[in-house]
Amino acid sequence: MSSLASRSDQIVRVAVIGVGLVGAEFVDQLLALPTPNPFRLVCLCSSKNILLALGGLSFSAQGWRSELWKSETKLGGFTDLAEKLSTLVVPNQKVVLVDNTANEAVAASYPIFLKAGINVITPNKKAFSGELSLYDDILATSAVSGARFLNESTVGAGLPIISTLKDLVTTGDKVLKIEGVFSGTMSYIFNEFSPAQGTGPAFSSVVRIAREKGYTEPHPADDLNGADVGRKLTILSRYIPALRTSLPSGYKSVNTRSLVPAELDNIESGDEFIEKLPAFDEQFDKMRKEASTEGKVLRFVGVVDVQNGVIKADLQRRVRCGHLSYPNTHPFATALGGSDNIIMFHTERYGPRPLIVQGAGAGAAVTAMGVLSDLLKLV
Amino acid sequence: MSSLASRSDQIVRVAVIGVGLVGAEFVDQLLALPTPNPFRLVCLCSSKNILLALGGLSFSAQGWRSELWKSETKLGGFTDLAEKLSTLVVPNQKVVLVDNTANEAVAASYPIFLKAGINVITPNKKAFSGELSLYDDILATSAVSGARFLNESTVGAGLPIISTLKDLVTTGDKVLKIEGVFSGTMSYIFNEFSPAQGTGPAFSSVVRIAREKGYTEPHPADDLNGADVGRKLTILSRYIPALRTSLPSGYKSVNTRSLVPAELDNIESGDEFIEKLPAFDEQFDKMRKEASTEGKVLRFVGVVDVQNGVIKADLQRRVRCGHLSYPNTHPFATALGGSDNIIMFHTERYGPRPLIVQGAGAGAAVTAMGVLSDLLKLV
Repeated sequence: MSSLASRSDQIVRVAVIGVGLVGAEFVDQLLALPTPNPFRLVCLCSSKNILLALGGLSFSAQGWRSELWKSETKLGGFTDLAEKLSTLVVPNQKVVLVDNTANEAVAASYPIFLKAGINVITPNKKAFSGELSLYDDILATSAVSGARFLNESTVGAGLPIISTLKDLVTTGDKVLKIEGVFSGTMSYIFNEFSPAQGTGPAFSSVVRIAREKGYTEPHPADDLNGADVGRKLTILSRYIPALRTSLPSGYKSVNTRSLVPAELDNIESGDEFIEKLPAFDEQFDKMRKEASTEGKVLRFVGVVDVQNGVIKADLQRRVRCGHLSYPNTHPFATALGGSDNIIMFHTERYGPRPLIVQGAGAGAAVTAMGVLSDLLKLV
Repeated sequence: MSSLASRSDQIVRVAVIGVGLVGAEFVDQLLALPTPNPFRLVCLCSSKNILLALGGLSFSAQGWRSELWKSETKLGGFTDLAEKLSTLVVPNQKVVLVDNTANEAVAASYPIFLKAGINVITPNKKAFSGELSLYDDILATSAVSGARFLNESTVGAGLPIISTLKDLVTTGDKVLKIEGVFSGTMSYIFNEFSPAQGTGPAFSSVVRIAREKGYTEPHPADDLNGADVGRKLTILSRYIPALRTSLPSGYKSVNTRSLVPAELDNIESGDEFIEKLPAFDEQFDKMRKEASTEGKVLRFVGVVDVQNGVIKADLQRRVRCGHLSYPNTHPFATALGGSDNIIMFHTERYGPRPLIVQGAGAGAAVTAMGVLSDLLKLV
């Protein structure tokens, strides 16, 4: 990095794993920060190559891609990396692992880094939405070493969702219910499929076009099955004291209504899935007609229903996701467009009218921005 | 305060000035934090009385009102208070002044506190929306001493508006335009006066009822003149590098279309103002009819138009507030209710669809929460 902070005690050492769409955009944004740039890149790591220089990597803002590509060093494993980085952790010297992958193994290694005093920042949902035991390990190691984990961009990308929830909870407000459209992909699909006027294209054609535009995962069932939304709900739930331990298997404990037809459940190829989906258009059309007859639209939403859960003591229904119908006048019907996320926080202090955050909840630029703004919070 | 943090190096000393609606709610919320409570109240100050104990005031969560009321000590001035508090500022020991007044003199004293190393947290708009010289003094003293000022609740109360804007700017996004309904009072008035169906009660009757409900200032002209919105726009503008110095006289430099009829400009009594307002109902009704004919509603909005300003080099039009008409399908028409604020951030990274934050932008509970969440950021 060409520019160094003026006071060395303010320099934060940064190791970046993952240089895909979000990762590459993050490195670009990091290198473009105005001087004095308080961050010094000490490690950059793709799935194949690694650049490591504990004193600081030096290359121009344009040059990092070719430098990384040329590198022949291999990653010796996360324990090895954590040990190397931990030598940089001394009083007033912060070190951060930025995980820009969606990798499960990297996620499982967070406790190693946190234990070594290395802060973890990531848009990777895996560690926070899986088994409770890993999450507990993350909390415990962070509490002991004082290293922090920040994951704003795991929900809503750059939108202030987790920070808002944390502020509500830590200041003593009572969260009653969180309800929202959490998936940019599912937002796009339902905004197209079920507009306020009631009619629209066939479900399979909307999904096909969304896939062609790169909005869905390579296999659209990975969006339609609700797992992504379930992961986000799990992450949010764990910030709510009353719900922290209520999803022992993470997103798999979320009450999820998948939109993948049972007959297509085991199709491994995304192409074949798209080919066979039209056979189910009639049943999707029926759902849309039923909603439309009542003056409603369909949306794929996630709900964290704290109050309901407390009253009914019905764990399984507290955190749920699936398609629901909303009146044509509801913000989920009137305010959404493109691949917007919208999240409503119903709380005791906000009373009958919720606090709402809305905007693009996917995309490399806004996701990387969420990661970078977490990083800036460490300075 | 009954509970003390376990490690003394994490204790933050807090001096609170102002125990009105917001101030009293803030003290209640502060004392209700779960143990270990990292904050120790060392000073509590109304317009008449002061409680000061540098070692920490001790009273129960219920008892502070009567203790303060019984106190006979008087405040010896802000310089005196800053000197006393500054003795608590040593490495790893933070001291904070929380100003819960709307007082101009307290606001003018922030540089004294910041210079002494005392952090300032406040919902008081005065210092950040007045003369640029005071604001510059605040920036300069804060930069030298390292003491911070946090003012999230000056705009949108507890809503994440300033933090969102800061995140956008510091991560390198380009803010093109901010547009919103920034006043809870004006939101209520126009939601009632100009609903989507086009007709509604007379303007003067809406204002009268809003005043009776305690939504307006004692003198409604203090809301209708747009100064409150102008102050909020000034605060936001100063976080945008391109606009930081563009409002030399603060909110007085904002291009403001007041709704106070010229004939009522010099009426000093709120009661008399309410009495005389019906004479102008016809002209307000005409405005509403014109909008309605075009399928639009009226809203009182504020705009920070960075792009427009840069292109036209027209300082006066960059930051403006007044009533504007919006299509019945616009979120300002469809999504608002009660005394909601709604703020849209149009930025380069968010592209054609803005990032939106919405919710109650006034009220003691949510304003105090905004102050408390700023305070928690210091730990």
